[in-house]
Amino acid sequence: MASQSEHKATVIDGKLIAQTIRSEIAEEVRQLSEKYGKVPGLAVVIVGNRKDSQSYVGMKRKACAEVGIQSFDMDLPEQISEAELVSKVHELNANPDVHVFEQSIVILAGILVQLPLPKHINEEKVLSEISLAKDVDGFHPLNIGKLAMKDREPLFQPCTPKGCLELLHRSGVSIKGKRAVVVGRSNIVGLPVSLLLLKADATVTVVHSRSNDQESIIREADIIIAAAGQPMMIKGSWIKPGAAVIDVGTNAVDDPSRKTGYRLVGDVDFNEACKIAGCITPVPGGVGPMTVAMLLKNTLEGAKRVIVQ
Amino acid sequence: MASQSEHKATVIDGKLIAQTIRSEIAEEVRQLSEKYGKVPGLAVVIVGNRKDSQSYVGMKRKACAEVGIQSFDMDLPEQISEAELVSKVHELNANPDVHVFEQSIVILAGILVQLPLPKHINEEKVLSEISLAKDVDGFHPLNIGKLAMKDREPLFQPCTPKGCLELLHRSGVSIKGKRAVVVGRSNIVGLPVSLLLLKADATVTVVHSRSNDQESIIREADIIIAAAGQPMMIKGSWIKPGAAVIDVGTNAVDDPSRKTGYRLVGDVDFNEACKIAGCITPVPGGVGPMTVAMLLKNTLEGAKRVIVQ
Repeated sequence: MASQSEHKATVIDGKLIAQTIRSEIAEEVRQLSEKYGKVPGLAVVIVGNRKDSQSYVGMKRKACAEVGIQSFDMDLPEQISEAELVSKVHELNANPDVHVFEQSIVILAGILVQLPLPKHINEEKVLSEISLAKDVDGFHPLNIGKLAMKDREPLFQPCTPKGCLELLHRSGVSIKGKRAVVVGRSNIVGLPVSLLLLKADATVTVVHSRSNDQESIIREADIIIAAAGQPMMIKGSWIKPGAAVIDVGTNAVDDPSRKTGYRLVGDVDFNEACKIAGCITPVPGGVGPMTVAMLLKNTLEGAKRVIVQ
Repeated sequence: MASQSEHKATVIDGKLIAQTIRSEIAEEVRQLSEKYGKVPGLAVVIVGNRKDSQSYVGMKRKACAEVGIQSFDMDLPEQISEAELVSKVHELNANPDVHVFEQSIVILAGILVQLPLPKHINEEKVLSEISLAKDVDGFHPLNIGKLAMKDREPLFQPCTPKGCLELLHRSGVSIKGKRAVVVGRSNIVGLPVSLLLLKADATVTVVHSRSNDQESIIREADIIIAAAGQPMMIKGSWIKPGAAVIDVGTNAVDDPSRKTGYRLVGDVDFNEACKIAGCITPVPGGVGPMTVAMLLKNTLEGAKRVIVQ
């Protein structure tokens, strides 16, 4: 007889799933180019010289290139005024066709403003100026409202939440009627993922820093989405045997054994959770790669709306 | 020793609380009139001759008159086209000052389009044409998006959900950190009330027709918002002792003992619940009067934004 300690959760390979999705996207882009002579374009607006922002943008640019989406950067100086930035966004909104690339017309389907913006600029104001049809990040409040409402659909779903659901679908986890507990309620993950799960007919509970007794509530979940930003807060004993665990957390913790001095961990104690959960995403290599894949997917979807009438 | 059957929940008198709120509104309207020579106005658009719609509109008109808000009806024929209706809405959007009433200028602060609209008209389209600044029903998806998002606030909160929270506040029920279960996920009640409770720092679960095991989840709630439209579905045994129960349901059930042949009941079995709950709203006389009071409050708030700069 197998002892309980031998149980090992299925590790959901986000990197592999994301790679599969990228291949699907690359194939669709190829077909668009062949059939219509048009390919999707993504404008990435970056303000200032933050190293982390430049590294994220670099990753996104590379991912675009890999699937045939034409990305181009709009690098703006740190000192740019809010009004000037808004006017740049308006320019991009108004721009339907950008340029010709290898005999294909590039359709500017998405605009991404890399956050954070410098302190003198109101992010909310800038983001709400992006045309809804090009809001591939899906953060416009009108998109969030439609995401929340029954019988309405946003033009774009936010990338990380969409990636979480895609991981569940592609891992064969059914959602309908299941108890889902979302840990965290941020505008970019916790809140929209809870709305997506509700639309998928889960029974959804949102717990957060003000919740009493998070542990016992999490223990009732068939599906846990951990998006609290608290390194390894969710212990193995908090998890219902067989639950699906999607760990959105990406926390740097000190690790003197590494050259860098740190390592990345999720919001879930992965080693403990592996002994209890049915399936679980690792950190890194779980949700992270899916966020970029969903950005590519949103850009493709936006382009198809323009190209395929 | 008191036996358990002697426990009697505090009945939350929605009619009385609504009356208190109306008096507060009447006083504020009086002050606006005195100080600025301006009073709030509410346009009520009604299409066709539905008896129920006319009765609701009549109720709202009467409530306005009582607090000094000037309501005026735009009665439109059943056959009106969608385009014509939208253009009427645009007219009202553009109209800041309406007319002079008893030496006060009436500020058109709110536009209410009574639902349902005739089948040939797309309700979503018409509602989204109402100016955000006059959307006193709070149903515009942009308002819902801001309601959902952290650190954002809609211009107006939908009336019935707002009324539910007001009943809790005025009954001394604390929300922060408490477990709230919302039964139902409609766009007009279940969904927005769950978002409001989350903003008030409750740990919120939404259960619905697809949920497995609603009963045991509801039994964990410190606060129950029943908005499923299922007559007396929530039994006394489903309620945690001492819980606060807000019953939004208004269901007509056959009752041969009445002249009308029916009576109104909520989604909660009131008599059973009274033996267990800490406090509970009756049906009728609970949430219903609050919806109209919140409509008046939203109209007042909209007017104050225009009048008091």
